[in-house]
This record gives sequence, structure tokens and C-alpha cells, in this order.
Amino acid sequence: MPALRTITTAAAIHAETSAQRAAGRSIGLVPTMGALHEGHLSLVRRARAECDAVVATIFVNPTQFGPSEDFSRYPRTLEKDLELLAELGCDLVFAPAQDEIYPPGFSTYVEPPAVAALLEGKHRPGHFRGVGTVVLKLFNLISADVAYFGQKDYQQSLVIQHMVRDLNLPIQITICPILRESDGLALSSRNRYLSPTERQQALALSRSLRQAEELVRSGLREARAIAAALRNELAAAGIQRIDYATVADAQTLAELNTLDRPAVALVACHVGTTRLIDNCLLPLP
Amino acid sequence: MPALRTITTAAAIHAETSAQRAAGRSIGLVPTMGALHEGHLSLVRRARAECDAVVATIFVNPTQFGPSEDFSRYPRTLEKDLELLAELGCDLVFAPAQDEIYPPGFSTYVEPPAVAALLEGKHRPGHFRGVGTVVLKLFNLISADVAYFGQKDYQQSLVIQHMVRDLNLPIQITICPILRESDGLALSSRNRYLSPTERQQALALSRSLRQAEELVRSGLREARAIAAALRNELAAAGIQRIDYATVADAQTLAELNTLDRPAVALVACHVGTTRLIDNCLLPLP
Repeated sequence: MPALRTITTAAAIHAETSAQRAAGRSIGLVPTMGALHEGHLSLVRRARAECDAVVATIFVNPTQFGPSEDFSRYPRTLEKDLELLAELGCDLVFAPAQDEIYPPGFSTYVEPPAVAALLEGKHRPGHFRGVGTVVLKLFNLISADVAYFGQKDYQQSLVIQHMVRDLNLPIQITICPILRESDGLALSSRNRYLSPTERQQALALSRSLRQAEELVRSGLREARAIAAALRNELAAAGIQRIDYATVADAQTLAELNTLDRPAVALVACHVGTTRLIDNCLLPLP
Repeated sequence: MPALRTITTAAAIHAETSAQRAAGRSIGLVPTMGALHEGHLSLVRRARAECDAVVATIFVNPTQFGPSEDFSRYPRTLEKDLELLAELGCDLVFAPAQDEIYPPGFSTYVEPPAVAALLEGKHRPGHFRGVGTVVLKLFNLISADVAYFGQKDYQQSLVIQHMVRDLNLPIQITICPILRESDGLALSSRNRYLSPTERQQALALSRSLRQAEELVRSGLREARAIAAALRNELAAAGIQRIDYATVADAQTLAELNTLDRPAVALVACHVGTTRLIDNCLLPLP
């Protein structure tokens, strides 16, 4: 097994991946902000199984954080990340400095698709503009065949899929299932912010989603009643700041009245000072 | 010489150009809105001389026209355009319908670089958002090695170059000189709107720019004095609606006080109901 190589410049990652592609190798791309957990690793494993070469990127993207968000304290665990990626047989890591991605004079952004305006877009203005921009740049630098993202960031996966469609980007997007702790908590780099008490409280997110699934299975079709049940479950756990808890069209994220099409339940709330999100596709009636 | 082929679907142009590139052929791209004149043809000739395959696109892009602009009456001369392209040995024309580029649900745009906010950006709000978006889409659909644009749209050429740099687009941009009628009028698809009287009046644009060049050659360094001379020349010809007549930094388009760096003179004005633009790089002191 050849060793994992780390590349830090835009020119070098472009040259290296272009050469591999010209040689007929398929490339799987796993964009991350580092602080890798089993969720990220599941994407790398999928890419490893499906592509000739696997490229992971590690870049804590400043443009997707709001001014009052956790950019500066976002966990950075580069050495550990590289060990994990090497163990999984990842071929290349692109880990650029901030100036390499946003050099002086940088001023072109993606105006993200309509689906970016809702939910996270309301609570994190500018977030998807930053996500869209950095993802587009990575797609241009690394001419991959497939890029892998997690369903955990459900709205992000739609933003990227719609951007790829609208801008005719020659890449396939594969969305991989959410990974959870045995007690249900969705894996997230931000879970490490949680105190033991908050960690218990945070279980309300996945519990509320399981309950929503059960309500649908038991025949409930009123989306607002299901959304109310989500909020009740979060509130009952003592979570006071709920950004949203909703049942929406799985493609547009438009709020639903009735479950008459593929739907997703999404929650975002603050547990202590940590903002957590989770979601679950609802069973079709 | 193989015949010119016209392609109208995004999928087909992508498949065809990808196959050519995979076979090792270099591709030159000439994006146009049709109504081709010798200026466009000079781009095709340059591409023909430099690349293995030449792809021209003909698409009157609705998103770059303002609501009160000339989108609906913009000249459309497809048959004549195809004849001209065939004569020059162009290999492929991509001439999509509007829905092929902007299908229902389309909502992702380019937020263009800072240089787009000035001059044309002030007088044609949204223009460069539309230009940037369609050019990015064409670059993604047609994986060209080089794309050719005319210096006539000087600010557009900067917007595209800055976008390519900022978004790491794997394409080279070549800007080709302005072509002029023997009396100086810069070639433009919009010249056909001009009445004989307006056609004479329109000569003031290129005349004002030649005068600016001469003033610089004769030692004038005050940018504002040169800009005043531009305006005087236009006004003297009876042109009443001048959008701008300015001397600016050739890279940023920031207005200059003194000619202490590479500079460009740019004019935009209305001759009758026709809006015309022209520009000229100024000789270095």
C-alpha cells in the first residue's frame, strides 16, 4: 500500500489529480473540515470501495462560519486525521492553508440555489454561500468522478446537488447515511463540545426523529402534528433554544401540511452553547 | 474538412467535447451571443490556429439583460452565423434553447468578483451575475483548454479572468484585440441598430479614445483631465447620455488620479436608443 501523501497547494493537487485522471484512474473525493469521526470515515470507505484513487480534503472553511460562530474554536486534529485516513487507504490529502484557498483579492462567490434560503439559511446567513463556494473550488481543483457527502447535513447535500445540476458540474454526488452512536446521537465533530449532562440532553434530537418515524408508520399524515411532536420531545428534554423542528418536502425543503410526497424531518437546536442538527427521511405513506 | 456540426443539448455537447479531450485533442472555445461579426470571427480564427478543435457557442443569454434592455430585439442570425463558422473551419457549434441552459428550478448563480461592481455593473445591475453564470456553465459543459473573448468588453474580460482565478477554473483565458471599421467604430452586434446619422455620431467613441492616447503620448498624466477630454469629445458630437467616460486601473478598474500604472480608458454612452461601449489601453508613461 503506497503511503498517504499530503498536498497543500492548489497547483499541486490540480496537477496530481489531473495526471491520475488522464491515466484513466477514477477519483473519489471526500471533502471535510477535519476533526474526523466514523461518519467521515464511512465516506472514505465508500470512496475506497468505488474508485481507483481516494482524495480527502481537510480545510476549516472560514466563509461558511458566521461572525458569532465557532470558526476559531472548531476542532483541528490534523495529525490524528492523517493517521485515520492512512489506515483506510486514502491516497491523497489536500490540506491547504487559508490563503491558498482565499488569496488576497479573492471576491467571486457562489450564490447558492433557492433551497439554501430556508432552515439553516435563515439561522446561519451566508453559510451556504461559503459552502457552495468552497465546494465549487474543490471540485474545480480536484477533477473527481464522484464526491461523497453525509446525509447528516441534509440541506447541504441538497444545496450541493442543486448547484451541481444548475452549474452543469461534471461530477456525481453520492450522499451516505448518517452514522450514530449506539444510543442514537448522530456523529458530529461538534459533539466533543458537549458536557456529560449536555450529551444526555442531546439524545432528544435523534429520539424526536425516531418518534416522528413511528408516528408516520402508525398512520399520522399531518405534517404539522409531527413537527409539534418533534418540538415537544426537544422541549421535554429541557432544550430551550430550538432553531427549527420541521417536516419538509425532501427535495425543496418547503414545509408540508400533509405527507403526500417524499418528506424529511429536520431539527436544529442549541444544547448548552453547542448547536446540533439531525434529520431523518420519513417512511412513505 | 469535416462539416460543422450543431449541437443543442447540454448532455450531447458535454459528451462530445469530453470524448475529444480524452482523445488528446486540445479544445478552443468561443462563447458568443451570435449575430456574428468580424470581431467574433477573429476569435474563431485565433482558436483555429491554436487548438485541435474549435467549439463556438451561440446563446442569447437572458440573465445578462436587464428588464428594460434589448433582450427580445437582440439580433438573431443563426443561419448566417453557421455559414460563417463553417467557412472558418469551426468544428462544433453549441446552440441551445433557453430551457436547456435555464431549466425550471434553476437558481444557482455566480456572485461575480469585485471588479463587476463598477462601471457596467452600476449601469447594468445584474449584468455580470448573468455573464459569470452562463460562462461558468459553458466552461463546465465544454471542457476547453482555452476560451477566447474580445477586449471590446473590457470589464467582462476582467470579470471572467478574476472568476477563473477565484474559482480555480482549469481553463486559460485569451483576450483578443478590438476590431474596428476603417473609420474607427468598434465592431458590435448592436451597430446594426444605428441609423446613418447615429452611425456618424457613434464615431465619437473611438475618436475620444484616440485623443486620450494622444494626450498621454504628449505627456499628460492627470487621469481626470484625460477623462474630461473623453467626455468633451462625446458631448461635442451631440451625445447627451454618457453612462461613463473614465480612466481606470487596468486590473481593478479603480478610477485613477495619476497615470502611474497600467491604465485603460473606457466609455459607455447612448447614441439614439443604442447603448455603445468602447475602450483602449493607454500607453505606459
